[in-house]
Amino acid sequence: MTLGKEIDGKAFAAKVQDKVAEGVAAFTASQGRKPGLAVVLVGEDPASAVYVRSKHKMTLKLGMESFEFKRPANISQEELMELVEELNGDPRVDGILVQLPLPKHLDEQAVVELINPDKDVDGLTPISTGRLALGLPGLVPCTPLGSLMLLQDELGDLSGKNAVVVGRSILVGKPMAQLLLNANCTVTIAHSRTQDLAGVIHQADIVVAAIGRPEMIKGAWIKPGATVIDVGINRVPAEEEGKTRIVGDVDTASAISHVAAITPVPGGVGPMTIAVLMRNTLFAAHLRAGLPAPLGL
Amino acid sequence: MTLGKEIDGKAFAAKVQDKVAEGVAAFTASQGRKPGLAVVLVGEDPASAVYVRSKHKMTLKLGMESFEFKRPANISQEELMELVEELNGDPRVDGILVQLPLPKHLDEQAVVELINPDKDVDGLTPISTGRLALGLPGLVPCTPLGSLMLLQDELGDLSGKNAVVVGRSILVGKPMAQLLLNANCTVTIAHSRTQDLAGVIHQADIVVAAIGRPEMIKGAWIKPGATVIDVGINRVPAEEEGKTRIVGDVDTASAISHVAAITPVPGGVGPMTIAVLMRNTLFAAHLRAGLPAPLGL
Repeated sequence: MTLGKEIDGKAFAAKVQDKVAEGVAAFTASQGRKPGLAVVLVGEDPASAVYVRSKHKMTLKLGMESFEFKRPANISQEELMELVEELNGDPRVDGILVQLPLPKHLDEQAVVELINPDKDVDGLTPISTGRLALGLPGLVPCTPLGSLMLLQDELGDLSGKNAVVVGRSILVGKPMAQLLLNANCTVTIAHSRTQDLAGVIHQADIVVAAIGRPEMIKGAWIKPGATVIDVGINRVPAEEEGKTRIVGDVDTASAISHVAAITPVPGGVGPMTIAVLMRNTLFAAHLRAGLPAPLGL
Repeated sequence: MTLGKEIDGKAFAAKVQDKVAEGVAAFTASQGRKPGLAVVLVGEDPASAVYVRSKHKMTLKLGMESFEFKRPANISQEELMELVEELNGDPRVDGILVQLPLPKHLDEQAVVELINPDKDVDGLTPISTGRLALGLPGLVPCTPLGSLMLLQDELGDLSGKNAVVVGRSILVGKPMAQLLLNANCTVTIAHSRTQDLAGVIHQADIVVAAIGRPEMIKGAWIKPGATVIDVGINRVPAEEEGKTRIVGDVDTASAISHVAAITPVPGGVGPMTIAVLMRNTLFAAHLRAGLPAPLGL
């Protein structure tokens, strides 16, 4: 028995980063300035601080400008909105990312909606969402776009394939479904209210799992030969007492025997998210400069 | 054998109109002005002229203001954009509808994108599309919303039902899928690239057909007991020479024996479209006035 392939998201993300770095160099040479990413971090959440730091490092590594704005947890709505307005107007800033979640007293939706859609590298504003649904050019959330890139690298043309997206979040499930539809898949969106989830998943050539429930999707539910993208990142207790480990939404051990390919967790989709954020920043810089989208990205 | 029920869209649309008329009277009494709908018609297309006339009549019948703007086919992009800008700024205008299609020399997308999303009663701007996908309050295209209202009237809570939308147009298929997803259906979007369309349709408790191909969906493809919304309006040759008749996308004759319910063509979804346009205008008037959405609509 041949085991299914583990998709090496880390290696593919490294290739995307290389292409972005090339694109950044070309942009900088032709425009006389570097593409710039502004990241806003409110408060002291340790996980958010780690994410922001790694985005900062990667931005610099690929040759772009990184602007960091750290604000105290008690910042007022008005101050935060003013900061976003400033970044909207700053010509050095191509991408704006407000690290979520924000502290509870702030109106997150209002902040997101204020971001200039042409700088919306997280792809979360209503205009970006609408552009994606309407098939217009625009910025797309990083994790689903990274997942699509892995699928296309693995399978080539996706046209006519049956794809099931499990989960309907704004950040992953819904935009993933739009991307797969734009790639001419027949797309089913399943979620917590779906009856016979196993049966629905068993129809699919492509399964994208984005529900945030550890190893919930069993291998037996997945059709032999399917390709599986596991977006879940769930921390569970490890065998060794007091330790934890990270698992996805798919029970990989029971799936690996009969899938064509599956992304491991960690090391699958995870590395793609930040690579696509870099790609989105370069993409936004091109759009803002009136240039065509960078080749191969 | 009991035949499936024919859903009387005309009767249901009349009920919606009655509710809108009540809502209009209440709005007018509380606000000291009537809700207003502005319709822009460019050129001499006879079908468009008919649609615009019936919208005008219905608007007046339900107690609202109707503003009509007929412009010659050779209007420039700039003139048309100026007109939309004027309507955006006119406080008497709650809804703006630009009758599509526009003559070929005009950039339709640019005109649609200029419409103030809060007056976008056709629900076609990127912001309206994004709001729908994000689950935010906003205006939704008339035909899919009318189809959803018929389904909810027929079936009550749609939660957990398997729904297949056949067709992925911006006007019907895509927003229909979003509405069904927001109503907690498991939603599949099928289209011209779908393989085994019959098999995909046969999974569904709810079938929405919006492909614009006369009687393409055969009765045998539809699961016994399913509810079918036929959005198609296709003109085909009638038996009598030189005459035509209107048929839907579903071959009703072969479906009626085993479906639970199906919308006829004509007389099913068609009458709902204009009723929902009236509802959307009243809805927009409420939103703009800072009032909660009108009850039961």
